[in-house]
Amino acid sequence: MAITVVGSVAFDSIETPAGKRERCLGGAATYFSLAASFFTDVRAIAVVGEDFGRRQEAVFQAHNIDTRGIERAKGKSFFWEGSYLEDLNEAKTHITDLNVFAAFDPKIPDSYRDSEFLFLANIDPVLQRRVREQMPDVKLVAGDTMNYWIKDHREALLEVLKGLDILLINDTEARMLTGKNNLVQAARGVMALGPKALVVKHGEYGATLFQKADPKGQGTKCFRAPAMLLDEVVDPTGAGDSFAGGFFGYLASQPELTPAAFRHAMFYGSVMGSFTCEGFGIDRLQKLTRKEIDDRFILFRELTHLD
Amino acid sequence: MAITVVGSVAFDSIETPAGKRERCLGGAATYFSLAASFFTDVRAIAVVGEDFGRRQEAVFQAHNIDTRGIERAKGKSFFWEGSYLEDLNEAKTHITDLNVFAAFDPKIPDSYRDSEFLFLANIDPVLQRRVREQMPDVKLVAGDTMNYWIKDHREALLEVLKGLDILLINDTEARMLTGKNNLVQAARGVMALGPKALVVKHGEYGATLFQKADPKGQGTKCFRAPAMLLDEVVDPTGAGDSFAGGFFGYLASQPELTPAAFRHAMFYGSVMGSFTCEGFGIDRLQKLTRKEIDDRFILFRELTHLD
Repeated sequence: MAITVVGSVAFDSIETPAGKRERCLGGAATYFSLAASFFTDVRAIAVVGEDFGRRQEAVFQAHNIDTRGIERAKGKSFFWEGSYLEDLNEAKTHITDLNVFAAFDPKIPDSYRDSEFLFLANIDPVLQRRVREQMPDVKLVAGDTMNYWIKDHREALLEVLKGLDILLINDTEARMLTGKNNLVQAARGVMALGPKALVVKHGEYGATLFQKADPKGQGTKCFRAPAMLLDEVVDPTGAGDSFAGGFFGYLASQPELTPAAFRHAMFYGSVMGSFTCEGFGIDRLQKLTRKEIDDRFILFRELTHLD
Repeated sequence: MAITVVGSVAFDSIETPAGKRERCLGGAATYFSLAASFFTDVRAIAVVGEDFGRRQEAVFQAHNIDTRGIERAKGKSFFWEGSYLEDLNEAKTHITDLNVFAAFDPKIPDSYRDSEFLFLANIDPVLQRRVREQMPDVKLVAGDTMNYWIKDHREALLEVLKGLDILLINDTEARMLTGKNNLVQAARGVMALGPKALVVKHGEYGATLFQKADPKGQGTKCFRAPAMLLDEVVDPTGAGDSFAGGFFGYLASQPELTPAAFRHAMFYGSVMGSFTCEGFGIDRLQKLTRKEIDDRFILFRELTHLD
């Protein structure tokens, strides 16, 4: 089943201990779309500037990602510059130029309206909500957010959470959102705000899925997926969005959303996140094959399974 | 098969967000012995002072732990006071009184000499080495250490590492010991110093076992065990030593040290560490039943296994 994703398509300048790259194609919607495209049809909603040319368009086309919802505006695309020189787990932002993104008003092409899955990548919660309201009939909605929205746009974010089935955030964000330091308590706090499930991403330690054990919200079911033990993390930019793409892409490819489907989705999320870390920007995702994904899935199983 | 363990038996005063306890029975050898005693015979080597009375002795006896190697000296037992008020993952030490431990010269009772497993808990590497040299014929030797020995007693520690089969430390210690920030590189660095295997404990994120893939040291095999998702961490003191006790105790109980035995040992280590966090000091370990251990093992499997 098709996924519609709304989020940023951007240019990133990145410095890590492994080197430096200028103006790579990036943005949450780009990473998400590429990762999810290995599992299902993906339709992207974003806005780009005049610097988004044929070469960038070709990246999406090579993965059969529908770009009819990517609006072309006058000016420059969203630009981010950051580094991970001291800590590979946390980006230090040097420059954020919103450019055409400042006036982004997401428009949903008619051809996207039968999408059964919707992913609201990390953008202004006001925009996330606007898209959500225009697609009331989707089967499953997941979303991401970040510290900035949690801290300074809390009211708008809480409105988005009410309409989410699954929220994907990291440890710090889960704690910030709920004021709970204990992860289980934080997860319960998040689910009390709306989402039926929460994925907490732990970076190099993997990720945990929390789900309400029954419809009344009594009890919590948990599942943990590992992260890949990589010899070298070349560039972690987009790893979280790639996790979301693998996770949600796999779910959308399944006939039924069984508990087993969710567990496998966690593994595929972690698999896709691990590949992204192996190259700068989208380098590794672009070259990836389905066989490599399946091989890594088997590795993840061996890494965690007793028998 | 029996394990001989050398380490500290101490009194701890502990403050955590859950409360405060004065002078609980603690020390690495205590936690290790209690945890391992659920799986195999344990023989302890330590020194205690006149404040170690019948009540403390009874704790060891209740778990059939051999205390003939626990020397009684004039003066007070090792005392530690610490808190975890800001961060449950890192103790803040207020007081360390070595007391009788300052002149500890481990003596191995003859009745311990047929032990096939030896655990060198976190003490002065000079003492670890002395014990190791007196038990040259053991089948498997594992050990622990800490930042203090890594930083200021490196030469002595390196001598200990040469005689270890398995080292158990945490992320920070693995990085400090090797100067490598990447965990896989750090693990390879540790194994180049002697140990054939390394267990890195990640606190609330579980633990990873690294093993040389073949005797020439080419390649690395990895296995990850989760940690329990606890509603409340009452007191993390001794969780690492309890992990070591469950891990090594399970290995010692097995007829053969197969790859599957190591994977199960990682789970049992994590299980025992999780119980310790549920109460102050050794409270939870003292009340524990084998059935609770087996039930939690099953929970850990459900938490991580796809099918």
